[in-house]
Amino acid sequence: MAERTGGPIDVLGIGNALVDVLSHEKDERLADLGLVKGAMHLVDESQAATLYDAIGPAVQISGGSAANTIVGVASFGARAQYVGKVRDDELGRVFAHDLRSVGVGYDTVAAASGPPTGRCLIMITPDAQRTMNTFLGASGHLTPADVDPALMARAKIVYLEGYLFDPPAAQEAFRTAARLTHDAGGKVALTLSDAFCVDRHRAAFLDLVERHVDILFANEAEIRSLYEAPDFDTALQAVRRRCEIAALTRSERGSVVVAGDAVHVVDAHPVDALVDTTGAGDLYAAGFLVGVSRGLALPVCGRLGSLAAAEVISHVGARPAAPLADLAAGLLG
Amino acid sequence: MAERTGGPIDVLGIGNALVDVLSHEKDERLADLGLVKGAMHLVDESQAATLYDAIGPAVQISGGSAANTIVGVASFGARAQYVGKVRDDELGRVFAHDLRSVGVGYDTVAAASGPPTGRCLIMITPDAQRTMNTFLGASGHLTPADVDPALMARAKIVYLEGYLFDPPAAQEAFRTAARLTHDAGGKVALTLSDAFCVDRHRAAFLDLVERHVDILFANEAEIRSLYEAPDFDTALQAVRRRCEIAALTRSERGSVVVAGDAVHVVDAHPVDALVDTTGAGDLYAAGFLVGVSRGLALPVCGRLGSLAAAEVISHVGARPAAPLADLAAGLLG
Repeated sequence: MAERTGGPIDVLGIGNALVDVLSHEKDERLADLGLVKGAMHLVDESQAATLYDAIGPAVQISGGSAANTIVGVASFGARAQYVGKVRDDELGRVFAHDLRSVGVGYDTVAAASGPPTGRCLIMITPDAQRTMNTFLGASGHLTPADVDPALMARAKIVYLEGYLFDPPAAQEAFRTAARLTHDAGGKVALTLSDAFCVDRHRAAFLDLVERHVDILFANEAEIRSLYEAPDFDTALQAVRRRCEIAALTRSERGSVVVAGDAVHVVDAHPVDALVDTTGAGDLYAAGFLVGVSRGLALPVCGRLGSLAAAEVISHVGARPAAPLADLAAGLLG
Repeated sequence: MAERTGGPIDVLGIGNALVDVLSHEKDERLADLGLVKGAMHLVDESQAATLYDAIGPAVQISGGSAANTIVGVASFGARAQYVGKVRDDELGRVFAHDLRSVGVGYDTVAAASGPPTGRCLIMITPDAQRTMNTFLGASGHLTPADVDPALMARAKIVYLEGYLFDPPAAQEAFRTAARLTHDAGGKVALTLSDAFCVDRHRAAFLDLVERHVDILFANEAEIRSLYEAPDFDTALQAVRRRCEIAALTRSERGSVVVAGDAVHVVDAHPVDALVDTTGAGDLYAAGFLVGVSRGLALPVCGRLGSLAAAEVISHVGARPAAPLADLAAGLLG
């Protein structure tokens, strides 16, 4: 674990520390609850309690977009660290255990008061779509004080999730992390996370991408939302001069990696059976960033991303079930 | 929910209220931790914490043997109630939610102090075997005061899990429940739960079966352990005069239902693919008791048990994934 040894960190992720609460629901239940299928809704503690009362039996499993990515980084055998806020409660201990047990360094101080550990109620409908209702809880109370300069200075890459833009205190932590990382010579990576999240914070994201982000991750809907572009190519042309590297994912059509004049089209990795698309973007980022941290060529970084995404969509859950280091042995050299 | 309406209850279960914590572990990890594969170990809070630190990422899901049975009873469309102790903490709320969300009445007062909600660390090895480490926590603090006479009086059948014999306070609650049930004209059912549990409490179990139990559930190992019998038939002959009804389960060989002079051999229900045997005994009891509560013939009760067991072993998890009322429509009439 990077933090304990004080050595270099390949990728450090900062995000909303959430435990996923998964249940299977019929479409009618979503309609009764007034939820738009497939969307991510932010809810407060009382709404989360009302929704929880309305849903069926559930399974609790650690989640959080950047946390899923960082677990993927560790699964590649790279040095991984996470920063995100939980409460000192049972779900907070579950979240911390699930990171540390796979070798991720995680030392953010748990809040001793305030809202409980954040959670994401994920309702899976029979068509395998997921409707998310996120109660940020303690994760929304991440502040600049949680961003340890000594830790940032050890990271080759600091990876930020766009969802962090929803809680105002976390936005500030975000900017602090970017500044500290650049001061120490590291790279700043960002994922846009969600087209609706981009829509809520477009001006701030545009400023951040232009001025602070070295590596940008986005899917087609997100990059089009950022530049309010009518199609993918228009969005691609908009981002190519504004960011050192942009990795744009397109589901089964693979990804396009843009770096100044260079554009690399990377195929998706074949999948025997598509089981659950959750975590595909999170794991693509993991593979890509491991490649960048090792100084590999961008097309190889993209292939590492595709490989990690393919692993995670071939089973239920947003974290890898098989060691990515073994699957990627040929690419990592 | 039976409790809220105050009407009759078909089956009321009393057991250790536990949340399962499932992880995948290699055989070497179990050996390092000094655990006997396939056994159920009782651990204290500090041992549970040490084991939790040693295991990989985990999934949290409501469990408890009698609770699984009672969820099965509700899935058949019968009126179901549960009595068991949690702490007023997050895992306690998870446990309560998962019962109530499927229509089980559950009103046992959560403990406001003392140990946290009980949990069972279940380590799944590559051979699909499960090694269980149970920290009873709050569940071990169930007392006779939690056994509401008005509730017992409404139950046609009160079902007790043998595991309750491990915590001493719960043993007393157990006897109180049996007495109250009989006083009100209901039937008392018991599952022996585990051959090692029987071994720990043989004298108490023998006394209970002879004097207080109307319907006994046991698998081959458990019934042989109870009577220290060299083979299944010897154990069968021992139990047939000591208990009104004994339902003895034999995995893929189905079950044998013994009631005085009558012996019914019931086939196992066919299963397309055996995925996970956890909960087979719990769900057999659910189907059987639903049949008894409806006054169905014993061979039909046995077939309802086989059907429910077949459903639960065809997927991961110890609670039904499909409504048993639909699957059993032909048998329930």
